[in-house]
Amino acid sequence: MLKHLPWVSTVFLLVACTPEARQTASPSAQQEPDSAEISALLASWMEGPAKEAILDFVAAVTDPGSPDFVPEPERIATFDNDGTLWSEKPVYFQLLFAIDRVKALAVEHPEWQEKQPFKGVLEDDLEAVAATGDHGLLELVMASHAGMTTAEFEVIVEEWLATARHPELDRAYTELVYQPMLELLDYLRANGFKTFITSGGGIEFMRPWVEEVYGIPPEQVVGSSIKVKYELLDGRPVLMRQPEIDFIDDEAGKPVGIHKFIGRRPILAVGNSDGDFEMLEWTTSGEGARLGLLIHHTDAEREWAYDRDSHVGRLARGLDEAVERGWIVVDMKNDWRAVYP
Amino acid sequence: MLKHLPWVSTVFLLVACTPEARQTASPSAQQEPDSAEISALLASWMEGPAKEAILDFVAAVTDPGSPDFVPEPERIATFDNDGTLWSEKPVYFQLLFAIDRVKALAVEHPEWQEKQPFKGVLEDDLEAVAATGDHGLLELVMASHAGMTTAEFEVIVEEWLATARHPELDRAYTELVYQPMLELLDYLRANGFKTFITSGGGIEFMRPWVEEVYGIPPEQVVGSSIKVKYELLDGRPVLMRQPEIDFIDDEAGKPVGIHKFIGRRPILAVGNSDGDFEMLEWTTSGEGARLGLLIHHTDAEREWAYDRDSHVGRLARGLDEAVERGWIVVDMKNDWRAVYP
Repeated sequence: MLKHLPWVSTVFLLVACTPEARQTASPSAQQEPDSAEISALLASWMEGPAKEAILDFVAAVTDPGSPDFVPEPERIATFDNDGTLWSEKPVYFQLLFAIDRVKALAVEHPEWQEKQPFKGVLEDDLEAVAATGDHGLLELVMASHAGMTTAEFEVIVEEWLATARHPELDRAYTELVYQPMLELLDYLRANGFKTFITSGGGIEFMRPWVEEVYGIPPEQVVGSSIKVKYELLDGRPVLMRQPEIDFIDDEAGKPVGIHKFIGRRPILAVGNSDGDFEMLEWTTSGEGARLGLLIHHTDAEREWAYDRDSHVGRLARGLDEAVERGWIVVDMKNDWRAVYP
Repeated sequence: MLKHLPWVSTVFLLVACTPEARQTASPSAQQEPDSAEISALLASWMEGPAKEAILDFVAAVTDPGSPDFVPEPERIATFDNDGTLWSEKPVYFQLLFAIDRVKALAVEHPEWQEKQPFKGVLEDDLEAVAATGDHGLLELVMASHAGMTTAEFEVIVEEWLATARHPELDRAYTELVYQPMLELLDYLRANGFKTFITSGGGIEFMRPWVEEVYGIPPEQVVGSSIKVKYELLDGRPVLMRQPEIDFIDDEAGKPVGIHKFIGRRPILAVGNSDGDFEMLEWTTSGEGARLGLLIHHTDAEREWAYDRDSHVGRLARGLDEAVERGWIVVDMKNDWRAVYP
């Protein structure tokens, strides 16, 4: 199970993670768009094949006279989160949350001072953490994500996001969302699409903030989850988070999650890693017009540049097969005027 | 697990099920409503405490000047299906589907002629079916609901609903939905509510038809499910239905399913049996204005009359505790002008 738990296993990365020689995000010079109309649609997207593919697709499926017309209720668009809607370096932000959470809980757990993997987290000795293997990593996740009510966990996530800063960029994590993707979400919704998140990350780690940040309501979030149990606590019903995996929404789990939660096949899917491969495959193999987009992290100046050799957001098969499958690879450096808002 | 699988275990009921001396549905005489305004809202609801509670609740949560005002995105309403939106007698319609399906598949399974529980189904010897116990019942469900792609299952359900007739009423099952509930769904949506189904029945048994019949899209259906697996079949991706239970959306599973799929606590919940108890408890114990409704089957003339002693849709604890919990019991006979459309 754990090998499918990307936001856990990448804790290993932290061991080797040294500050990269990179610039913090600086908005690129705003250029005048080609026309006022295009400007109004996807202002942070450069003219080019990626933007053209998006505009052509949306025009085709929304024109009642087009052979590719899709009725509004079937205009389902699914978006991966980590690396697609917000950044994912140096590691998935949810893992940084888990580590901060273990540190915050340590005062209630004096035994953690001498017990791995907690000892390693508390001493910033991530090599020791990694040495505990998958079992230790699962212990970290369960200690930080289970054992409280769903309402309590929501507050914990909200408080963390309100105060935590990215270790390299010194910005709030919710400021590290991609401006062009915010515009794409708005553009699709303005054209009758229903937008969903389909992330390998934890569903309850996303739901507290994605409505405000992305305009995506909690009921349109698909993700990985642990089990919850209905209980009466002092006579009041609560949902207690259990230390047990319920569903992993990654790789072949993404089409399964889409089917389970949405019950329709998307006509548009956006991802950035090979964890999104099956989602794009499932989406674009349906009948009629379909669009698959892969965000390619090519911008070491404004964000990060990585693909085949990255442990976070590894993208290899998707790059190899994009052309034959008709998927559009979005070149972050050349296709986006700006990265962050 | 099986004791929580109401649409399976009630096959036992069929053994003792004799045609009841009852009238087929006859629409009651339309009475003039008290005012044109009320008529336009919930025309098939009689004036009385149930209708009044609904109107008062919706007025309170939609009035921006009210202390009970609820912003539109949080106006979540959840509805049980069997016995709440459509009938459930003599047994859950999904069980009748499973039996018809086994009969249809029998030609491909000559071994079923001699093997229980299939032999019993094929010979209409439901006593023999019941004698196989939970294991036999699970075999029936898996034989009828698993082993095909999700797309194939959808077609199977659609074709069954298009041709099957209720054994006593000789009407299509989708004509056995409750007209007052259709009006309530419309009324809530017109007031900014998002309406969800939260049923113990199979999610994929409902999704193919509930959008057309109830106006509820597939992505707003929560229910019980079996697992599906993403596979390539002759190079094309499919989702294969596996003979394994994934989730049972009943009793304490209903708040869990609501949390899993919707991620918000409803402000209004409607059910009809003790399988809905926890859903109403969870809904109405939230802060602010909340409404819990229980449909009480009191009308042996136009539908069926049953509660405490019924194996399908048993309602006992809900009746006992409705008053102290502030839940509204809808008396089908006296609160509804009409039952079916």
